[in-house]
Order: sequence, then C-alpha cells, then structure tokens
Amino acid sequence: MSSVNQVYPVIWQSDASGNAPDRVLLIDQTRLPNEYAFVEISRCDDMARAIKTMIVRGAPAIGVAAAYGMYLGARELDETERDRFLAGLEGVAETLRQTRPTAVNLFWATERMLKVARQTLGSVDYLKQALLETAKQINADDIQTCQAIGGHGLSVLPTSPEKLRLLTHCNAGALATAGYGTALGVVRSAWQAERLERLYADETRPRLQGAKLTAWECVQEGIPVTVITDSMAAHCMKQGMIDAVVVGADRIAANGDAANKIGTYSVALIAKAHNVPFFVAAPLSTIDFSIADGSQIPIEERDPEEVCQVGDTILCPPGVDYYNPAFDVTPASLITAIVTEFGAFVPSQIQTELQSRKIV
Amino acid sequence: MSSVNQVYPVIWQSDASGNAPDRVLLIDQTRLPNEYAFVEISRCDDMARAIKTMIVRGAPAIGVAAAYGMYLGARELDETERDRFLAGLEGVAETLRQTRPTAVNLFWATERMLKVARQTLGSVDYLKQALLETAKQINADDIQTCQAIGGHGLSVLPTSPEKLRLLTHCNAGALATAGYGTALGVVRSAWQAERLERLYADETRPRLQGAKLTAWECVQEGIPVTVITDSMAAHCMKQGMIDAVVVGADRIAANGDAANKIGTYSVALIAKAHNVPFFVAAPLSTIDFSIADGSQIPIEERDPEEVCQVGDTILCPPGVDYYNPAFDVTPASLITAIVTEFGAFVPSQIQTELQSRKIV
Repeated sequence: MSSVNQVYPVIWQSDASGNAPDRVLLIDQTRLPNEYAFVEISRCDDMARAIKTMIVRGAPAIGVAAAYGMYLGARELDETERDRFLAGLEGVAETLRQTRPTAVNLFWATERMLKVARQTLGSVDYLKQALLETAKQINADDIQTCQAIGGHGLSVLPTSPEKLRLLTHCNAGALATAGYGTALGVVRSAWQAERLERLYADETRPRLQGAKLTAWECVQEGIPVTVITDSMAAHCMKQGMIDAVVVGADRIAANGDAANKIGTYSVALIAKAHNVPFFVAAPLSTIDFSIADGSQIPIEERDPEEVCQVGDTILCPPGVDYYNPAFDVTPASLITAIVTEFGAFVPSQIQTELQSRKIV
Repeated sequence: MSSVNQVYPVIWQSDASGNAPDRVLLIDQTRLPNEYAFVEISRCDDMARAIKTMIVRGAPAIGVAAAYGMYLGARELDETERDRFLAGLEGVAETLRQTRPTAVNLFWATERMLKVARQTLGSVDYLKQALLETAKQINADDIQTCQAIGGHGLSVLPTSPEKLRLLTHCNAGALATAGYGTALGVVRSAWQAERLERLYADETRPRLQGAKLTAWECVQEGIPVTVITDSMAAHCMKQGMIDAVVVGADRIAANGDAANKIGTYSVALIAKAHNVPFFVAAPLSTIDFSIADGSQIPIEERDPEEVCQVGDTILCPPGVDYYNPAFDVTPASLITAIVTEFGAFVPSQIQTELQSRKIV
C-alpha cells in the first residue's frame, strides 16, 4: 500500500523549526485533476479568498477550512483585553461568512468557534490556543464521521457478488470533507475490505466533479475507476454492470427526500427500474428536520456558462436558452437506505429511529 | 418568416454560366455551431474524404452524399465504352463504401446507383445523366420522407396543452438527413402548426450533438430551444416542463426495440416514470426485420477520447478507465409509438401492420 496517497484537502501544518508561522495547507481544487498543488494559508483573509474562489469546496471541507480561518483571524488580533478580542473575532467570523452564503457548514463552524471563545475562561492567548484545538477537533471529527459512514455503508451493501461494481455521481469524497468522504467513504470502506471490484463515476455535467475530482481521488488511492458520461448509467445497469449506487446529499428532509447534485434523481429512477439498490451517504448534520419533505428544498439555479462552455470551448451557438438547476430532489421511495455516522436507516423511518435512540 | 434559414446539408449546385463544373455543396458539420460554412465538392475523392472526416454525417445524409459522389465519380470516368464504364463505376462505389463501414445508407445508395447504371440503356453520357437524376431523386425522396414523418408525428403528439414543450436527444435533424430531419421533422411540423412552445435539447454527451447541432438547427429557423445537460431531463419532467419526447433511431428490430444514441434509453425510462409519451421517429429503412429484438443489435464502442476530452480540455486525470458505448437500446415497451413516413405505429404491432398494408 506504499503508493497510496490519502487525500486531505485541509491540513494543519506546525512549523517545528519555528522559522515560519504555523499554517493551513489547502489542496487547490481548481487545478485538479491536471495539477496536485497545495496553497499555504497563514492569514484569515487568504482563507476567505480560498473559500470564495473554490480552492476548497464541499460543505464539510468548507466548515473545517472556516474553523482554521477563525483561528488564523484570532492570531492576527493584537488585543490582550478579552472583550475587545471577542469583538474582533466577530469581525473575523463575518469576513468568513461572506464567502459562500449558502454553505450551512460555514455558519455552523464559525458559530461553534465563537461559542468556544465566549465560553473559555482565561487569557486571550489561552483563548487563541483553545480556538486552534477546536479547529483541529472539528477537522478530526469530520474524518471520523466519514469513516463511520463508510463502515455503516459497507455493512448494508449487497452481500453478493463478493466484488462489487459501485456507481457514484458527483464528488462526495475526501475532497468535499476533511478526508475519506461520505459516498466515497463507503467506496473506500468497500475497497479496504476487498469488497470492491470497480467504481463507475458519472462525469457529472455541467461541472464535471465526477470526471475531475472523484476520478482523481480514486487514482490517488489505486481504486479502479471507470468514468462514464451521465447518459451511460442506464445502459450500464441494463448490461448488469452495476451492483449498487452510492451518492452524497446536500440536504435531506425529515421524510427522507434527499437533495443532491443535479442528475442524482435521474440515477435513482434508473436504479429503481433495474432493481439496483440506491444509497445516500451523509452525516446527520445534513438532515434538516425543519423541512417536512423535498418539495420545500429550494433548488439553486446557476450560471448558464456552466452548461454552454467547457474549458475554452463554447459548445452552443448564440441564440440558445439554458436551464441550469444545480440540484434535484430524490424522493425517499427511491432510496434503499440513508447511511449516516449513526447507522443506515430506511428513509421513511429515519426521524423516528433517531428519536427513539435519543440521537436527535 | 423571412429570417428562416432552412437547413440542407447536401445541395446540388448547377452552374448556369458554364464557367465551373456542377458541384455539391456540403455544410461543414465539423465547424458547427461556431461557423456555418460550405465545402464545394466536384470530385468523387473529395466526397469520400468529406464522408470519412464527418463533414457530412447522419445515415440518411451520408446516403445522399454518396449518391452524388457516385455521379461525380462517373463524370470523371473517361470511358465511352459501356462495359468499361460500368467496371470503372464499381471502383467508384468501392471508394465510397470504404469511408464509413457501418453506415447502412452508404451501401444502399451506392448499390442503387450501380443498379441504375446497369439497367439504363443508351450511351455512357446518357448513363451519367441518369445517375445524376437518380442522385437528385434520392435527395428529394429523403426530404419528402422526413416531411411525411413530421406530419404523422404531429398527428400523434398530445392534444393538450395546445403549445407543447418537447424534449429531444442527440441530432436527428435536417443535418442528419437530406433536410427537415426525423425527430426534428416532428418538431418542425409542430412549430409550423403553432403547436410548439419550446424544444428542450439534451446536450448529448459525449459528442454533444444536441448542444452543437440540434441547437444550431433550431436557431436557424427561429425555433425556441433550451439546452440542458443529459442529467437534467428527469428534474425537468418532475417539474412538469416536458409534454413529450421525440428521438430518432439508428436501427429498429422487428419487435420495436430501438437502438439510438447513448442516453436515449435513459430518457425513455425517465419519461415512463413521469408518464411522458416517448416517440421514436425514423424512416421505414431504419427497421431491420431480420433482427427479432434489440438484444441482437451490436453496440459500437468508440474512442475513450470522446469521454475524457472536450475541445482542448482534458477532463480526467491519467490512470482512469473509460467506457464509451455509442448507442443503447430502448425496449419497445417504453416507446409510445414509432413514427415512420407511412404513419405512427405501436411498436409491438409495427411488423404486422406494415405487412397487412402490404408496405413490407
């Protein structure tokens, strides 16, 4: 396993020599898959810019990056007086919150960091240290959550054939989390347990996260991966080439309806038609119990340029209209199980199960 | 309607001044949609090259181009002796047949031209004239076939709403035929009858014929067209945005199973799930009664480059595998009707209907 490169999009780097400040390394995801490069971030402003320009992307990964951003901002505050420091930290949080207004984890992470600062007693230096420890904890917790999802996912995958051919859509991988991934966490667990024959990755137009990011992650760890266009999944299933589908989620309603990258609903319909089990892998934090069903999940519409242009190539002639919804909603009835860090649940029962186990 | 540009990919041009030889004009489809340019062809070798390099593509359009190619080759034969001329013409046919070995219409058109030459009495000059008239007839017949398909398609489209939102996949348009198109023939008929609100065009990865060619054809004739990625069709149908689907076919089995561009089967499954009618529009010549069902239709696998590259942009990292089937098979059970120049048929009844009407 010496050639395996585990992927961590956000890394805290202490400088043992003391010659440079401790810093965060981010994989520059805008350059993948052609270039695997890290960006060094030692100032909060730089972290805000990195989130805004999608050097780091994926809700959980953004949360971790923002937590470190809070510490970097705290480190720059030249205040020894506690109240002034806390006021300055509010400004730091605001800078980070402005970067990606729809990323829930961004708000969650900055809020948790502010709370730690407010609730920790002691000097400002001690507060700063507590903030760094909290950011590291958020980082570590996210990896652990993904690994738990992977384990629970593995336990509900079909028992036959022994070596599975899985299909995924978009990138719910290490790159979108602190590491290991949600849907790709299940794939990794299957690979480590020698239950994986091959991953099929939908290229995931328009932004091609499958072709670019999921494929790259697999290559890093030596996981056999076949990229197909989104239009080929049905034909592959008809040929008996796919044993199960595993995807991530951006938001899950209380009834188990799941919003995820555009095209996920299409894959779910196709899987149902071929009796291929369809799993959604996501942390508990993705479930929004305030929303009764998927019809209440707003669907973001994005720039037409994503559809009409790839690289420098304009695909369509002038005079054409575009429609570019970023997400779609897969009804609970098409989902075999929702896999969380607390186990796998039948979608329609997830709320009552979690309540009876006092998890929510 | 003064701004309407009807699209004819293969045009016979007589030079009235007599200063230049009569010639064929081909729309250079490799340059669409960025450039609308014609290539002038006055020699058979140039026609063969144009077919090979896909300046002209689409089975019926290739057939028409090959028929003119036969005449151009005949014109170049400096033989006045009939048998020598016919032997030379066999060589011309062979040159054309070598260009695209899988295009059925290529073989059909060259064979029909050879037969005309063999069966026509008179001088070699008279034979050459008969060949030109036959090529023109093949050209005109194909347009008429498409217009008949359009009319029959219009008559089976849903009667409500009055203004329909249609979805198509790939390009079964004027560019793929002598003009008017098969699936786009139905769209054009609906547009002319003021029954069309808008066409939704799947971009049709990997080769993007929907984004490039179907969109371009619509813009030429002022037909409102919205390009979506293939992954968005299911979401659109769920939102109630699509009233019917119309696609073409490359080969139809005797039981009504239809092979067409990869992703067509996916659209058919999705349409069924939303009770959206799904029509296949194709000339009678597409039906292969020697094949009992779709499982016997061979599926061509094409160059992985089509999946991993768009324009100059490489999408995927090295080390990734690809699967690139060019076609898939939609079972007859998912097809509402097959629309031919002889009318629209329930797929399972098409053979007996055509037989009882003595058409086949």
